[in-house]
Amino acid sequence: MARLAYVNGRFVRHADAAIHIEDRGYQFADGVYEVVTVLGGGFVDEAGHLARLKHSLGELRISMPFSDAVLKLVMHELARRNGVRDGYLYLQITRGVAPRDFKFPKACKSAIVMTTRRQRFSPVVEEGAGIRVVTVLDIRWARRDIKSIGLLAQVLAKQAAADAGAFEAWMVDPDGFVTEGASSNAWIVTRDGVLVTRQADHSVLHGITGNSIERIAGELGIKVERRPFSVAEAHEAREAFVTSATTFCLPVTEIDGRAVANGYPGELSRTLRQHYFAYGLTRQEQAFAWPK
Amino acid sequence: MARLAYVNGRFVRHADAAIHIEDRGYQFADGVYEVVTVLGGGFVDEAGHLARLKHSLGELRISMPFSDAVLKLVMHELARRNGVRDGYLYLQITRGVAPRDFKFPKACKSAIVMTTRRQRFSPVVEEGAGIRVVTVLDIRWARRDIKSIGLLAQVLAKQAAADAGAFEAWMVDPDGFVTEGASSNAWIVTRDGVLVTRQADHSVLHGITGNSIERIAGELGIKVERRPFSVAEAHEAREAFVTSATTFCLPVTEIDGRAVANGYPGELSRTLRQHYFAYGLTRQEQAFAWPK
Repeated sequence: MARLAYVNGRFVRHADAAIHIEDRGYQFADGVYEVVTVLGGGFVDEAGHLARLKHSLGELRISMPFSDAVLKLVMHELARRNGVRDGYLYLQITRGVAPRDFKFPKACKSAIVMTTRRQRFSPVVEEGAGIRVVTVLDIRWARRDIKSIGLLAQVLAKQAAADAGAFEAWMVDPDGFVTEGASSNAWIVTRDGVLVTRQADHSVLHGITGNSIERIAGELGIKVERRPFSVAEAHEAREAFVTSATTFCLPVTEIDGRAVANGYPGELSRTLRQHYFAYGLTRQEQAFAWPK
Repeated sequence: MARLAYVNGRFVRHADAAIHIEDRGYQFADGVYEVVTVLGGGFVDEAGHLARLKHSLGELRISMPFSDAVLKLVMHELARRNGVRDGYLYLQITRGVAPRDFKFPKACKSAIVMTTRRQRFSPVVEEGAGIRVVTVLDIRWARRDIKSIGLLAQVLAKQAAADAGAFEAWMVDPDGFVTEGASSNAWIVTRDGVLVTRQADHSVLHGITGNSIERIAGELGIKVERRPFSVAEAHEAREAFVTSATTFCLPVTEIDGRAVANGYPGELSRTLRQHYFAYGLTRQEQAFAWPK
């Protein structure tokens, strides 16, 4: 059976999935997205992702195309039809189709697109499976808390990483502090065993997976500090890792060509990954309230 | 006859003009655009717009879908088929369609879309036809010299203007200096009769219409300074105006609710508009070299 996509109310063959050229997502990046992991046939951190989706839409005054219940139904139905037990669902909502004009159109129906992809995940990080990271200047706009489809700066950062043989780019603010990865949140473990990741303000995307990792760390009795850390501090860290919906918690073993600690995936990173994996399978999601 | 659009090699009915949901323009804002004015059946500043298009594409390592000659041919043919003697052509080139992944796809054919719209232009600014401007914080990314389709910050700025009953938003950097308008370049005329607009670096889009206005001003013996000006300086200005492909040179008569000078379109702005209009009709475009 051909893989399906969901486009504005219809399940269509992925190859035929199209939107009008005047969809504002195509002309203005006037839309937002989410990526939700499917693990063992269920969505991980679904409530968190939907809460962030609503935050992004609300900040842009784009309306939800339909209720939460219908949205979830369509998400689950697409994953089911595509036989995705492990993988992820990509969901994009734009302001809709209107004759090109910068300001919001008076009458415009939000457009919604969903796709899925199968992917196997493992709770275990193999020896030597840590990722390389390079640092680049963070040149993005000032509202990074909105998960918009305006991702060109991230595309360039990710390509700079690929050009250097690395998996991820850590973006650095003008003061030398890491904001986050091009498609993940950035974490370090200090010499004292404290987890450090940037506070959730407008300078970074509020990570849903990162939130869960923070909670799990707390349950394990590990201290978490929400503050900026510098590239220099990262070079001296005991461990480093990234978090995102599709990477879960992935150890960083090299930053700008320098090994992190002994150059092997850190123990804490691997422990957190295993716990997150187990949590992801439980569907025991905590009630999620988007912070004010 | 139905209005046509040009989409990836074909002239299609505008209503049917579609692109795949995995066009990177839709998922990453990974593309660029130009708007070229059609005046009296010909394109205005065509060479300048094509030079800027190539600059934008080059900075993003997106390849031109075809040669200059073919591109021009298609542009002229679409304007001809749509019977556009006065109006503009919108042209968008993205990196193309590929399975979603931030970094550049290995094999990807650039996608190209063109549309046109009819619009009447006048060399004369009617009494009371000056525009209102509001100032907003410039929250865009750092590579504003690339005319990318990642325009969400501009959309929000333009909507803030509309909410305040204004036509344009002037974006202001953290030091209080105007960068440019959401979809135009910003200019003032000082008490001494000097034209001031921001220098063309990464902080603003290099205006093609603005370049021509600058040249025309020089020919009229008017001094032009390329430097940042503050909002306070704009409030004290003798005149203010915006330049862009579709507004030509349009007088600003109010900034944040305060009248500019006596609140009427300035003489110099009106003169420059008339000269630009006349120049646009001549097709005597200067050889254009993109500055290094």
